[in-house]
Amino acid sequence: MINKCALILLSGGLDSVTALAWASRQDFALEETLSFVYGQRHTREIDSAAAVAAYYGLPHRVISLTTIEGSRLTNLGGIPQGRDLTSLTETIAPTYVPNRNLILLAHAGARALLGEVAYLIGGWNAADALNYPDCRDDFLASAQQTLRLATLREFTIVRPLIQDDKPAIVRRALDLRAPLHLTWTCYLGDEQACGKCDACQLRIAAFQQVGVIDPIPYAISIDWSGCQPYTEITA
Amino acid sequence: MINKCALILLSGGLDSVTALAWASRQDFALEETLSFVYGQRHTREIDSAAAVAAYYGLPHRVISLTTIEGSRLTNLGGIPQGRDLTSLTETIAPTYVPNRNLILLAHAGARALLGEVAYLIGGWNAADALNYPDCRDDFLASAQQTLRLATLREFTIVRPLIQDDKPAIVRRALDLRAPLHLTWTCYLGDEQACGKCDACQLRIAAFQQVGVIDPIPYAISIDWSGCQPYTEITA
Repeated sequence: MINKCALILLSGGLDSVTALAWASRQDFALEETLSFVYGQRHTREIDSAAAVAAYYGLPHRVISLTTIEGSRLTNLGGIPQGRDLTSLTETIAPTYVPNRNLILLAHAGARALLGEVAYLIGGWNAADALNYPDCRDDFLASAQQTLRLATLREFTIVRPLIQDDKPAIVRRALDLRAPLHLTWTCYLGDEQACGKCDACQLRIAAFQQVGVIDPIPYAISIDWSGCQPYTEITA
Repeated sequence: MINKCALILLSGGLDSVTALAWASRQDFALEETLSFVYGQRHTREIDSAAAVAAYYGLPHRVISLTTIEGSRLTNLGGIPQGRDLTSLTETIAPTYVPNRNLILLAHAGARALLGEVAYLIGGWNAADALNYPDCRDDFLASAQQTLRLATLREFTIVRPLIQDDKPAIVRRALDLRAPLHLTWTCYLGDEQACGKCDACQLRIAAFQQVGVIDPIPYAISIDWSGCQPYTEITA
């Protein structure tokens, strides 16, 4: 059987690392992991992506683009912290990066054409789909069709987590023995994760719901009562 | 009546300049012209785009991307010259730049989201559609739908030349008084156009068919017998 030649979009966060952990057990020939610099406030997530790629013994390529302006994650205002995420009604999050996923998929498609890659794998999921239109399944299906027409190659955008909320992703990551201790989710790039930005809040709540202590360090005290140590789960 | 807010993708070549000449007479509010640096062998076309934008009194923005590898126009081999273009059977030209148009449209879409722009205008045409899949109408329609899903904005990709071959574009450019003397088509960036690359060959043949002398200088002697001077046509 011939393995399916694939690239992985790897941000270094929980989702893309779980997608990689999944892909590593499927019949893919993983050619390369791809990270992108697009003006985000820190590159700590790129360091995490490099560490995760090394963990799986895969090449890690960083593609530097122009700054994608117009997002709290790049050039606008600051990172929102302490928002109440239980009652969000917004259509698009302030941390949406304009058209980011189409930009990344377009560049990944160009890269793929240098070899035999026909599968582009990423960590798009149901939690992000809510306030990030470019993480939704209808967008990804349309992007796949557009890529095929642009290149005459039968690309498939593989989205193993598309039905998963954050707790489901944590559960799946633990099952797959994904190296969650190497991941970086916080929108800030400090020594410890802030624990207050939207991304930290969602991650912490997911680990609490699953009942496992998140292995990365936080700058604030987190209530891990009733949760098992990460190392016990993954031992 | 409210004008329709638009961006123009302007390479500085015959096609995009003709698209701009067309758009300048429609009910668009032209916000900006966009050129891209993606590792092409010379930036003379960017200079042409800047001159054309200035001619129309429009802002010109240059977006610098990573090199799009895998094309004769960027990092592979050399520019083909002297090919017989009358009997091409190839599916994709050696000067196809992998996924270029999706990359450019994705970045243009991100840029558009900073303001009210909902129209992206470009010079895609029937001549290029033959060996460049990412210049075809089905690709552009799919890209438009994908952009809408990624951004929740009702983008329209405007393609006024999509039915035109090269002679039709030259005729239209002359009718619209497009500043063809400022354009640059040659794949090389020398003082004079080479006259031998695919792009020069198609341009020269189009002017000959229309019966007008191309106003740009060529490094080789061209048979303009029976053709009128450009300045007589545009006077």
